[in-house]
Amino acid sequence: MKVLGIDPGLRNMGWGVIEVDGSRLRHVANGTIHSDGAQDLGSRLSVLFRGLCAVIATHAPDEAAVEQTFVNKDATGTLKLGQARGVALLAPAEAGISVGEYAPNAVKKTVVGVGHAAKEQVQHMVRIQLPGVIFDSPDAADALAIAICHSRHLQGRTLRVASPKRGAA
Amino acid sequence: MKVLGIDPGLRNMGWGVIEVDGSRLRHVANGTIHSDGAQDLGSRLSVLFRGLCAVIATHAPDEAAVEQTFVNKDATGTLKLGQARGVALLAPAEAGISVGEYAPNAVKKTVVGVGHAAKEQVQHMVRIQLPGVIFDSPDAADALAIAICHSRHLQGRTLRVASPKRGAA
Repeated sequence: MKVLGIDPGLRNMGWGVIEVDGSRLRHVANGTIHSDGAQDLGSRLSVLFRGLCAVIATHAPDEAAVEQTFVNKDATGTLKLGQARGVALLAPAEAGISVGEYAPNAVKKTVVGVGHAAKEQVQHMVRIQLPGVIFDSPDAADALAIAICHSRHLQGRTLRVASPKRGAA
Repeated sequence: MKVLGIDPGLRNMGWGVIEVDGSRLRHVANGTIHSDGAQDLGSRLSVLFRGLCAVIATHAPDEAAVEQTFVNKDATGTLKLGQARGVALLAPAEAGISVGEYAPNAVKKTVVGVGHAAKEQVQHMVRIQLPGVIFDSPDAADALAIAICHSRHLQGRTLRVASPKRGAA
């Protein structure tokens, strides 16, 4: 099964695809879609949307996950992030792929073991779990961490489904 | 020329199409696209995106405009609005239509004459400028006001282009 992780941003949209085979993970690809700040907002969102649609068409992920960021210093920044995030959620949804959402702390907790890990620690653990990976950008590294987080949650779900509680009919 | 106005919202996305012939305006259609709060966010954004794409395919607007809302009480609300707004900007951009953005006060100033007009005042002026219009919802009325605002700005632009300053080569 392939999982696509997306780290949404209006200027830089990080993405990463991993292959999940039981508990084994393998890096497939990662990258960053840039939008030009000099263009109008509609065109920028179009560039991000088409970039993500191309990634989905190329790698055909079965599942997707996007970081759930609430906090931001100002309303303008939050609105910008929201606009990019809307596009990040729309692209897989339009391809019929279900999209998981994880808070940054949940991603860190799953990948590193603690919710308040530093960026370098997250990248270190992503490298260990995806041997040989080279990050296209910090945003692409974050996207791979989100993909790993989603794959671990999917495994948990599968295990729960595969081992029914005693006493079940 | 046809102008599409969009009042973005995650639950209710208002839209309105007007026909502009010189300084004369005519109502074409207005409506509201609803997304179900029980669905996951990706699916909700998909419903809004497809709804807007259908409006654009049906009415073939030449121009579009979206309200530029910055302020909101909390970051969660702003993020939600941002996500809906991203989709509202993306749909016309994907159809190759340029999208204007207007702050709520600019819309009120253009339609009513003052920047701090009440909602009822805006609706009253929209009814006067688009005789016979029946609003599908308050959001659809806002969308028509945004379309009117954009059409007035386009007229201003055309007038400026059509009457070059004295002394120009």
